[in-house]
Amino acid sequence: MDYKQSGVDIDAGNEVVRRIRSLAKGTFTPGVLSQIGSFGGLFSLSSTPMRDPVLVASADGVGTKLRVAFMTGIHNTVGRDLVNHCVNDILVQGALPLFFLDYLATGRLDPDVAVRIVEGLSEGCRENGCALLGGETAEMPGFYADGEYDVAGFIVGAVERAHLIDGRTISSGDVLIGLPSSGLHTNGYSLARRVAFEVAGLNVNDMVPELGTTIGDALLRPHRSYLPVIRPLLGRGLVKGMAHITGGGITDNLPRILPEGCGAVVDRNAWEVPAVFNWLQRQGGVPDDDMLRTFNMGIGLIVISARNDADAVIGTLAGAGESGARRIGEIQDGVGVRYA
Amino acid sequence: MDYKQSGVDIDAGNEVVRRIRSLAKGTFTPGVLSQIGSFGGLFSLSSTPMRDPVLVASADGVGTKLRVAFMTGIHNTVGRDLVNHCVNDILVQGALPLFFLDYLATGRLDPDVAVRIVEGLSEGCRENGCALLGGETAEMPGFYADGEYDVAGFIVGAVERAHLIDGRTISSGDVLIGLPSSGLHTNGYSLARRVAFEVAGLNVNDMVPELGTTIGDALLRPHRSYLPVIRPLLGRGLVKGMAHITGGGITDNLPRILPEGCGAVVDRNAWEVPAVFNWLQRQGGVPDDDMLRTFNMGIGLIVISARNDADAVIGTLAGAGESGARRIGEIQDGVGVRYA
Repeated sequence: MDYKQSGVDIDAGNEVVRRIRSLAKGTFTPGVLSQIGSFGGLFSLSSTPMRDPVLVASADGVGTKLRVAFMTGIHNTVGRDLVNHCVNDILVQGALPLFFLDYLATGRLDPDVAVRIVEGLSEGCRENGCALLGGETAEMPGFYADGEYDVAGFIVGAVERAHLIDGRTISSGDVLIGLPSSGLHTNGYSLARRVAFEVAGLNVNDMVPELGTTIGDALLRPHRSYLPVIRPLLGRGLVKGMAHITGGGITDNLPRILPEGCGAVVDRNAWEVPAVFNWLQRQGGVPDDDMLRTFNMGIGLIVISARNDADAVIGTLAGAGESGARRIGEIQDGVGVRYA
Repeated sequence: MDYKQSGVDIDAGNEVVRRIRSLAKGTFTPGVLSQIGSFGGLFSLSSTPMRDPVLVASADGVGTKLRVAFMTGIHNTVGRDLVNHCVNDILVQGALPLFFLDYLATGRLDPDVAVRIVEGLSEGCRENGCALLGGETAEMPGFYADGEYDVAGFIVGAVERAHLIDGRTISSGDVLIGLPSSGLHTNGYSLARRVAFEVAGLNVNDMVPELGTTIGDALLRPHRSYLPVIRPLLGRGLVKGMAHITGGGITDNLPRILPEGCGAVVDRNAWEVPAVFNWLQRQGGVPDDDMLRTFNMGIGLIVISARNDADAVIGTLAGAGESGARRIGEIQDGVGVRYA
């Protein structure tokens, strides 16, 4: 008995490493010192000189959106989902991404699928100016069904301590500015898949006239990165806090940055909920509260600013190409999120 | 239909977050600025002032050693495996750990199991002076069998650029110094489990007289961290390169740090192979080459030093409590690893 017979193919793993090495190299920024294949990836901080640097790190996955990738056979978009999700998670604290690492686990490694996943990761990294510094490809026989995998991402960024955004100064009267999402992003897929594929009984390639596309395409639409439009706001003191609207929706994510004694009132009429959410709610008979605590409902990121700065924030966003930003509510004394 | 019915229990997830928050807090070092629950974890580099800091990062998993945890119901040791594996991966480049993040994915979250996993992670982090800065707990219905999970770890450490260890100066005549492993560490488990539980037909609780313990205990023995014994060697110029012996064994890992034109000759009689490897080889009829390319065979880390420095290295290791370090071979002109 050798190792290959037991379900692990070291040579296939090495082949994947060779093919992804060139993809990763295409993402390397001046800070990267190492080649993929070192035990650890090396990143020099002297490439981004700061007086008092704070590292901001986050780990995340794609969740069961992966199953839509399995169903459609489209494996080169989930990597962008993952990178963009991670980029947004550190961006809301004011950090720019430095580097990213992935963990890809399968039952039996299909080199072509693995390469397509890493293509998505490296594309996402390049778009965000973030180096794909390394990762782990694990072949775990029996852990994952044939053709399935899980992928996790880990990002490290940095911010000058003086420019850290932590919500501490948020107070009553501040304004909530919502930025549009590009779809479900990476949250709510267990519910969305159940509604689309069980309750509504669709196949991934079925057209949904109301959405103007197939249900597979609608659900696979990549999680957007807010870095390009938020970047011009950083370090200018205009932003008191930002919340990335992920699992738990506005309901659970906005309170994560609110100081004690502060609540938020969100005006549900301030933006138009995208068709995909209305379609899911109607098909599944999902209560309003559950929709709001599961999906982003069309708002993927919320910026909180002083009332006097709100126009400057919206203007700066527009200048960076984000024309969909709008006031969606305000901070009031209280706790949690109230919808009006 | 609400989100819980679709297989995701946000409240159970929040409950786990509450319970692991106090575990993570117990690992916090002076660099940590954030509480778990922020979008990103915050770590101030001014806590470890360096002139020219290089960040060293690595991602890893526990592999199918997890299945031994499932079989025994012991879930509080795999976290230490994971942290120690990651610590060693950056240690071999001279870096001390700063912080760690985990990704834990299950089909249905069992709060008690999740907490036990994080207990192991936080213990491992505390032992290595490394902050558990954050992580992601993903509930993915249908992705993992009942009672199963996967866990990945991400570590970031730092080293002064002048003290980086990268193997560049390794040359013919240098000495290989092997440090004992504590068992299989986290590699070769697909083969080991097949031999132990299928070929030999054992149950995890069966005693193996030759090993003086149950097969479950022998296979679960935690991956050791080499940080405490290697630390006194760092920054002193005695070490030219280090290799962490993980998946692929000495055969595949040692060449990762050898410069072009350098090969290694390893003297297999220089150390006694621990009983567990001999038992696995005999039970499974595994060829020598496969053993050497699958398992660490009793050597978990290799230090390469100039011939004149080898005694100083071994003496320093002994002074730090590592009495098992010994010369196991040398560098010669050539390529790859040759066993003698």
